[in-house]
Amino acid sequence: MRGYFITFEGPDGSGKSTQIKLIKEYFEKKGFDLIITREPGGTRISEKIRDIILDNEHTEMDYIAEALLYAAARAQHVSQLIKPALEEGKVVICDRFVDSSFVYQGEGRGLGKCVKEINDIAIRGFMPDVTFLFKIDPEIGNMRIKNKNRLDMEKIDYHRIVYNAYLKLEKEYPDRIKGIDAGRSIDEIHEEIKEYLEKLLK
Amino acid sequence: MRGYFITFEGPDGSGKSTQIKLIKEYFEKKGFDLIITREPGGTRISEKIRDIILDNEHTEMDYIAEALLYAAARAQHVSQLIKPALEEGKVVICDRFVDSSFVYQGEGRGLGKCVKEINDIAIRGFMPDVTFLFKIDPEIGNMRIKNKNRLDMEKIDYHRIVYNAYLKLEKEYPDRIKGIDAGRSIDEIHEEIKEYLEKLLK
Repeated sequence: MRGYFITFEGPDGSGKSTQIKLIKEYFEKKGFDLIITREPGGTRISEKIRDIILDNEHTEMDYIAEALLYAAARAQHVSQLIKPALEEGKVVICDRFVDSSFVYQGEGRGLGKCVKEINDIAIRGFMPDVTFLFKIDPEIGNMRIKNKNRLDMEKIDYHRIVYNAYLKLEKEYPDRIKGIDAGRSIDEIHEEIKEYLEKLLK
Repeated sequence: MRGYFITFEGPDGSGKSTQIKLIKEYFEKKGFDLIITREPGGTRISEKIRDIILDNEHTEMDYIAEALLYAAARAQHVSQLIKPALEEGKVVICDRFVDSSFVYQGEGRGLGKCVKEINDIAIRGFMPDVTFLFKIDPEIGNMRIKNKNRLDMEKIDYHRIVYNAYLKLEKEYPDRIKGIDAGRSIDEIHEEIKEYLEKLLK
C-alpha cells in the first residue's frame, strides 16, 4: 500500500514546525513509519543546493537561476527520498513543496507560468495528497522569525504578494489545499489538522 | 557595439583549452577586451553549482536534477556575466555552453527535448555567435584527461552517444557550429579557427 504525502505551506513564522512535530506523534501512535523532511533540502545533494539558495551573501542571484535551483533540489528530493518512501508505505511530511515555488518564485519574483513549466519537468505531475496552508498575516509571521535567511529578508511587499498568491492557490485547489487559521492556539490548530487526517486515512 | 560570444564544444581532452589560450592572444593583439569563462561556472554562484554537479561522490544524482543544475548555473552566468560583457563590447569566450546540455543531458542521459525546454527558460534564445566543435574520437579524448570528474568517468558508450549527438547538432546548425578536426597539430587548428574569426569580425 502506498503511503501518504503531506505538505505544509505558508509564511515562515506561521507555526508549521510546531504542528509538524505534533503530527509526527499522531502518526507514530497509529503505528505508521514516518519521514519528516523539508524543501529546499531533504537529501545530501538537495541540502547543498539549499545552502546556495538561502545564502545571505548571494544578493546577485538571478531569479530564473533561483527557480531552477529550487526545481533541481525538488527533482532530487522526490526521486531519491519521497517516492521510494511512499512506495514502502511510509508517511512523508514535507515542510514546503511545489506550492512554495509557485508563490515565492512565480508570483513573488514575477516569473509567472515558467515556474510551473520548470516544475512540471522536475516532478512530472507528482503532487501531495494533502497540503496544509498556514494562514497568518505575513507581517506578523515575519516578526516571529529569529534567524532570517536571504528570502526572509525581502521587503514586506514581497511577502504580501506571496501570501495573496497562497490564498489564490487555496481557492484553485480546494480538494488538496486545506487553509488553516494559524492565529489560534497550538492545540486548536492541531485538532483541526487531526480532523483532516482522520478523513484522509479512512 | 555589441561584442562577440564564442563557445567551444567537444569531448573533454579534445584540446579546447589550448586553443582558447591562443584565441585569447589573437583577440588581445587586435585590441579587444576579452573574457574567458567556462560552464558550468563562470560566476560565484555558478561555480558553487559546478562543485555540486561534478563532485565524484554524487553518484546518486538524478538526471533531471542534473539538467536543472546546469541550466541554473547557465542562467546565472548569462545574466550576470556574459550579457553585460557583450553589451560593453567585450569578446566572451566560453568553454562549453548550451550545446553541452543538449548532448550530455538530452542525448547522453536520454532526457530528450525537456533539456531544450529547460534551457529555453534559462537563456530565452540567447545563443553564441559562433561555436567551435572539436571533433575527436571520444575514446582518444578520454585517454588524454588527467583528473577525471563524475561525467568523465561515465562509460565509453555514453561518450559515444554524446559525440554522435554533437555531430547531429553540427549538421543542424551549420551557420553557427564550425566543426574542427581536433586530431591535427595545435598550429593547424589555430590557423583554421583564425580563418573563421576573420570572417566573423568583418
